Amino acid sequence: MSMESVEAYLQQNSERFVSELSELLRIPSVSGDSAFKGDVRRAAQLVDQQMRQAGMTTEIVETPGHPIVVGTLTQSPGAPTLLVYGHYDVQPPDPLQDWITPPFQPTVRDGKIYARGATDDKGQMLTHIKAIEAWTKATGKLPVNVKVIIEGEEEVGSRNLEDFLESHRKQLACDIVVVSDTSQYAPGIPAITYGLRGIIAAEIIVRGPKQDLHSGIFGGSVTNPVNALAKLIASLHDDQGHVKIPGFYDEITPLSVQERQQFAALPFDEVDFLQGVGVSTGWGETGFTANERRWARPTCDVNGITGGYQGEGPKTIIPAWARAKITCRLVPNQNPEKIVQSLEAYLRSHLRPGATLEFKSDHGASGLVFDTSSKYMQAASRAVAAAFGREPVFIREGGSIPVVKTFKDILGADTLLLGWGQNTDNLHSPNEHFTLADFHRGIHASARLMWELSGRK
Amino acid sequence: MSMESVEAYLQQNSERFVSELSELLRIPSVSGDSAFKGDVRRAAQLVDQQMRQAGMTTEIVETPGHPIVVGTLTQSPGAPTLLVYGHYDVQPPDPLQDWITPPFQPTVRDGKIYARGATDDKGQMLTHIKAIEAWTKATGKLPVNVKVIIEGEEEVGSRNLEDFLESHRKQLACDIVVVSDTSQYAPGIPAITYGLRGIIAAEIIVRGPKQDLHSGIFGGSVTNPVNALAKLIASLHDDQGHVKIPGFYDEITPLSVQERQQFAALPFDEVDFLQGVGVSTGWGETGFTANERRWARPTCDVNGITGGYQGEGPKTIIPAWARAKITCRLVPNQNPEKIVQSLEAYLRSHLRPGATLEFKSDHGASGLVFDTSSKYMQAASRAVAAAFGREPVFIREGGSIPVVKTFKDILGADTLLLGWGQNTDNLHSPNEHFTLADFHRGIHASARLMWELSGRK
Repeated sequence: MSMESVEAYLQQNSERFVSELSELLRIPSVSGDSAFKGDVRRAAQLVDQQMRQAGMTTEIVETPGHPIVVGTLTQSPGAPTLLVYGHYDVQPPDPLQDWITPPFQPTVRDGKIYARGATDDKGQMLTHIKAIEAWTKATGKLPVNVKVIIEGEEEVGSRNLEDFLESHRKQLACDIVVVSDTSQYAPGIPAITYGLRGIIAAEIIVRGPKQDLHSGIFGGSVTNPVNALAKLIASLHDDQGHVKIPGFYDEITPLSVQERQQFAALPFDEVDFLQGVGVSTGWGETGFTANERRWARPTCDVNGITGGYQGEGPKTIIPAWARAKITCRLVPNQNPEKIVQSLEAYLRSHLRPGATLEFKSDHGASGLVFDTSSKYMQAASRAVAAAFGREPVFIREGGSIPVVKTFKDILGADTLLLGWGQNTDNLHSPNEHFTLADFHRGIHASARLMWELSGRK
Repeated sequence: MSMESVEAYLQQNSERFVSELSELLRIPSVSGDSAFKGDVRRAAQLVDQQMRQAGMTTEIVETPGHPIVVGTLTQSPGAPTLLVYGHYDVQPPDPLQDWITPPFQPTVRDGKIYARGATDDKGQMLTHIKAIEAWTKATGKLPVNVKVIIEGEEEVGSRNLEDFLESHRKQLACDIVVVSDTSQYAPGIPAITYGLRGIIAAEIIVRGPKQDLHSGIFGGSVTNPVNALAKLIASLHDDQGHVKIPGFYDEITPLSVQERQQFAALPFDEVDFLQGVGVSTGWGETGFTANERRWARPTCDVNGITGGYQGEGPKTIIPAWARAKITCRLVPNQNPEKIVQSLEAYLRSHLRPGATLEFKSDHGASGLVFDTSSKYMQAASRAVAAAFGREPVFIREGGSIPVVKTFKDILGADTLLLGWGQNTDNLHSPNEHFTLADFHRGIHASARLMWELSGRK
């Protein structure tokens, strides 16, 4: 009976949920750019307000960076305790000119809401807050205990989350963590993600002459930092797509035959997949399928490069410096610190004479996998099936949610990765969106998960 | 007697010449950026005005791009005819933050005038206009016939000059061309440049996915355009500094023993030279000295590169595209068209699957050398010696003045390259400047050259 009244409440309040999501999407909470600091805080305050409205006791916890919004509702002794984690910060919206409607003016088209953060992660994390609201408003209480932490630095490496978790270890004790920051496998095929890649990030600057030089007068006599940087980047891969950083693959456990079969059994059309992103041919490590490469093999990509003259027309200079932002996606057993060290040493060994290399590394996190047969995984599977009308598939994902490892280390809890969005929702890209039906199904699944974990009373 | 009255006039008017140079330097005539179109025209008008003030008949000739200012004063039948060429357009001033005083607010410090275009080429070209003024004002007439063309597209490849020369071939008939757009060899060592490198320019764009992609979800399965572009650039050189474009060196005449000895006899301290630009070690083709590499060997440099995320902090994307601006400096006998074709084919052959390459080539010009024993070269040598107090050395230069080849082809005339500035004047760089003493000596040398060529009557 209680689940039914919750479902009725969800139905009755679905439009308001969308308008409350829109309100949050209108705030440009870009954590990676200090110009948006005030907006990031405004987003935290709005999340706090929506949590209070859901019936939780809340607190905005300050950090050296952006604040963390914490909510608790733990009035069900004996029932399991869920810790919901999400983030209210977003990626930068550029290139701005590629957005059909502005990134911070949420717009609904064809049943999808378009805005930066629509799916990553404002829309997805809000599903749990609305599910809590539905339980408290429709039945007066939650069937489980819930703690919610929504941070504002996920897109910049969750720099202050670990300290926060350490210092709030007791307060955040839980049986299982729930995170909705992944995707369904495909439209109509919901998924539970049991593996994530890790990540390391580095910014490198190659410096040559103290200022830009005339390429006629000086060309041929000094190292060109752009050419030198290109050489460093080119040295990262061989022509078979293998990463050449020494030791990069050494500690990886090979994919099991069973897991490869499980991946291969998923509906996947590589031609469609590639057409969807506008390329004719894929590229990557030879000897692996596209899904194996995306989910279970490490990569090394340049995310941005700049140097020298950027304007219209030619400018005949030898630039003074060139910069690249590099990230490697890691898989279980790769040690992020060792990989960073090896990357730096490898780049230094390939540096041309007459140039210097600045190497700065940012956040690092290991890849990981969870046991799909646990009672939490199985309860989540039933909840998703009920809300989405189809059993979820168990998949891995190529993205990184570094905190999942931190939850394991600090709180001793595994994480349920329940993605309500789609791969094609353009997260981190222009025209990010979230299908409203997925938003509502996500809220439903979250509410149902609480019920499943309570023992269905 | 006439030369003495000219010299007296120069002395008396030196301050006004500087303030008239300043007036021209205040105009941001950046030809490569269409935002400055109106300023480029204003610069043309001011040059025209200063030519008229020098006693010339002038005309501002329209082209499909920026206009060419033409002046003539040909009232000395039987005397040789000089064609002075220069340009009033300038390179873009960025990076703006590196300028001590703003690029278009000319400022005199320690006897040097700082501004974009101070030496390249507003200050240098103006010396000839002021020399003409001195002759006409001090003596009532020029000892030779002079034609002056000052264009506004030198920094963007002199796109319309060739058509202009073709269509004004008769009107511009001359015995010798004079260009001051090079440098002295060193402070206190004036030089006549008898060789120039040529140039080809290309802009390449590597395109991958139709938009930026999440590097977690897609990383490993598609070509990253920045990594692919880096591979193309890295493929341009081997570790010995040789350019690997097929056929690049095939048609070059090896440097003669005599010329290598002549280069080696010039005062040159490579350690000082490198320290001057802020690097500890040089880099270039093995087997050649720094001056040989700068003056008489071809190069291939990236002048600018861009792709992906340029802002603060990390952004985990696979960029949709990456662009590089490339120029190669050429030496005599290298065919620019063949080099461009070979470059394009070579790059295409190194392109990773799943990426496309856009290749756009701009201006091309051959390298060239002139006979140092001609009567014009010898007259110029005497004029420079008189004005600078020291015999000039004969050198080659690594920069490109493509029109010099065009003058040879269309007008059949050789060019005297008389550089009054210094290598260290930061041309094409922040804090470009011109030593005022060099400005005045340049005017003096130009006036004296006219006298030397007239037979010293």
